[in-house]
Amino acid sequence: MSENYNSMWENLGLDLSAHDALLEALGKSYRDIYLAQKHRPQGMGYFDFVMSEVHGLRIKELIDEKAAGRKVIGSFCVFVPEEIVRSAGATLVGLCTGADFATDEAENFLPRNTCSLIKSAFGFKLGKVCPYIESADMIVGENTCDGKKKSYEVLNDLVPNLYVMDLPQMKSDEGRALLKAEYLRFKEAVEKLTGITIDAARLKKGIEIVNNKRKAIYRLLSLRKVDPAPISGLDALLANQVFFYDDPTRFTLSVNKICDELEQRIEKKQGVFPENTPRILISGCPMAVPNWKLPWIIETSGAVIVGEESCVGERGTRNLTHDSASTVDELMEAIVDRYFKVDCAIFTPNPDRLNHIEEMVETYKADGIIHYGLQFCQPYLMESMPVEKALEAKNIPTLRIDTDYSTEDMGQLKTRVEAFVELIKLKHVPT
Amino acid sequence: MSENYNSMWENLGLDLSAHDALLEALGKSYRDIYLAQKHRPQGMGYFDFVMSEVHGLRIKELIDEKAAGRKVIGSFCVFVPEEIVRSAGATLVGLCTGADFATDEAENFLPRNTCSLIKSAFGFKLGKVCPYIESADMIVGENTCDGKKKSYEVLNDLVPNLYVMDLPQMKSDEGRALLKAEYLRFKEAVEKLTGITIDAARLKKGIEIVNNKRKAIYRLLSLRKVDPAPISGLDALLANQVFFYDDPTRFTLSVNKICDELEQRIEKKQGVFPENTPRILISGCPMAVPNWKLPWIIETSGAVIVGEESCVGERGTRNLTHDSASTVDELMEAIVDRYFKVDCAIFTPNPDRLNHIEEMVETYKADGIIHYGLQFCQPYLMESMPVEKALEAKNIPTLRIDTDYSTEDMGQLKTRVEAFVELIKLKHVPT
Repeated sequence: MSENYNSMWENLGLDLSAHDALLEALGKSYRDIYLAQKHRPQGMGYFDFVMSEVHGLRIKELIDEKAAGRKVIGSFCVFVPEEIVRSAGATLVGLCTGADFATDEAENFLPRNTCSLIKSAFGFKLGKVCPYIESADMIVGENTCDGKKKSYEVLNDLVPNLYVMDLPQMKSDEGRALLKAEYLRFKEAVEKLTGITIDAARLKKGIEIVNNKRKAIYRLLSLRKVDPAPISGLDALLANQVFFYDDPTRFTLSVNKICDELEQRIEKKQGVFPENTPRILISGCPMAVPNWKLPWIIETSGAVIVGEESCVGERGTRNLTHDSASTVDELMEAIVDRYFKVDCAIFTPNPDRLNHIEEMVETYKADGIIHYGLQFCQPYLMESMPVEKALEAKNIPTLRIDTDYSTEDMGQLKTRVEAFVELIKLKHVPT
Repeated sequence: MSENYNSMWENLGLDLSAHDALLEALGKSYRDIYLAQKHRPQGMGYFDFVMSEVHGLRIKELIDEKAAGRKVIGSFCVFVPEEIVRSAGATLVGLCTGADFATDEAENFLPRNTCSLIKSAFGFKLGKVCPYIESADMIVGENTCDGKKKSYEVLNDLVPNLYVMDLPQMKSDEGRALLKAEYLRFKEAVEKLTGITIDAARLKKGIEIVNNKRKAIYRLLSLRKVDPAPISGLDALLANQVFFYDDPTRFTLSVNKICDELEQRIEKKQGVFPENTPRILISGCPMAVPNWKLPWIIETSGAVIVGEESCVGERGTRNLTHDSASTVDELMEAIVDRYFKVDCAIFTPNPDRLNHIEEMVETYKADGIIHYGLQFCQPYLMESMPVEKALEAKNIPTLRIDTDYSTEDMGQLKTRVEAFVELIKLKHVPT
């Protein structure tokens, strides 16, 4: 990254030396994990560039947008409707939550038994190393899990611009009414922040931009159905992660370009791993940049990841928002419809998620599932046990992994994943 | 307890030998913790009897009620409105959640990092030792914390009669609407279960019975304002616990009788501990029978507990339901009003709780607060840190304790509590 971002970072209030150390560690991880991969699609060069400039050029773009009078809104969750943000000419960005940073400081505000993702958000804020949170004109929290819900009360004292969105816990009529009321309230808040009244034309345009982004990533994910897989799980995850940061129109173009390349690969039966490599579906908690630990372990243990049943994956990107309506109210209804389908474990009951996992196993011809649970993430850890039982009952091998952002358990995880991959291979041997 | 309950327990499907072992352990705890106390009010004899018959005579009463066509409803939470249950001639009982039992079996269904209270509920069911859950015609779960919310999905496969009540997360207009809709749905479910239509007269009567119970326990709690305290914290906790099990009218009479005795004690300046004993307020998670560990440690460490800011305590019992209305809808509104005030940590934000703690410190002349958090109870553990900061800022000594139902940490807890009591005493020495 170019040196001349220092003054920008300084103006944002970042701790330059801590931030330098973070970028160095991030760069090393990226080289070791991403650039060390073989047979990568050429189009991934775009994402290599995006990642190399994730705290540089992308932040400069946001600062430029702000200078031009546009607003930046930061979020921690796929329930924050990007359509609304975009329709007010504002930009939605995911905030840093994917690595341990300033954990000791975070534990002055949060119990130790808090999941890594929440601690990370606090650590990046307290350690002054997240240019996204410092650029944001509004930070949106949402009442998903207890951990996030209650931590926003604490975060509220650490940032000047937190907006909290309530969410339902059940997919009942009252639950939907609550979601709609909250999305209308959010629309008003965005209008107030931006000074722009969101009319039907704007909303339709916002929906179109975000739908296009979803169509592109969904096209990419769908190409992983074939064997050999034309793209690694690590690279597909990266695309899923950049989905939250990048300019949506540019992202859409870049992903579609990769898809063109992958289609050619598929025609030539070129894969990133040999045919018949065991195919793994990951299911569970979100993996934010640079949380690549488990996928890296899986793909260096003789398997390929062919799908992500995750917020950073199909849970977050599937289902388009219908844009055929012509009034603001109807379009808002369509937005509510779309997000009310998200099968997050915060809902009770949540049968759609199991159905989706089983559907993905079939679609992506997965040989087994690795359930990724963040330690202390009660909704996903609780759900993982009945999910595992249901999948095993259908003879779908399932491995439950609970971990955090530390590297301490990597050896143990590698041993478990390797044994799981061997088990899958044995299942394939004709008896 | 009389031997002739064996056939009753057998008919309920209890595991007799495991149940015998449980009762023996419970009896020993009770003798060591409760009967070993000095200067107990005579009226506590009633509660000694209740506890000695908690799985015997009280269960027989419930069975008799069922034989007479009445229904028994079990619950895990103070958000289940007893007024509605009572107005349909049914009985609400708290279910067993206060001790480790069959934890290994429970961990086949729940993550290890689940709070003791939830694991206990599962352990008592799986170990077949809770006659309450086996007697219940309906078991009511409620979407409070993530742990309970998600565990009810699992419990649903273990019991034939689970009813889940949704709850709001914010005290907004939509939150209140959701609570009202859910209470109306619960009323219909109770009507269907009992075959009784709840009219205004019945609802008024139900409110009256429950209000009287609340007035009695509140009278008892209020008498602890004086120094020396006329009743121990352990005994007051027991009354708070039995509140959830006993026949409400008999409970009301018995508590009022103890209050008469305590008023005489106060007149004579008789206390359970000497005057100027350091006065502790407990705040935090509920303590169900036989979870007496922390209060016992506190009251054998030179302090007296003068109040419980807890579901099993004032959080659960304060605030009466207005009964002046004359229509079902108005009375239901009054019930919603009453429960919507409960300052549980599941709500965000939850400023009423801190206000209530500070109010209780003043009312009960507490010298310090011990915040009791169950390990992995995210709502209360998250809230405990800002609560501690706010209290310390007002110069109110606060000790945060996170524990579970095991006895392993008792030595460590005793050391910490003794040090805290010494600190309070030092504060009182004139300099």
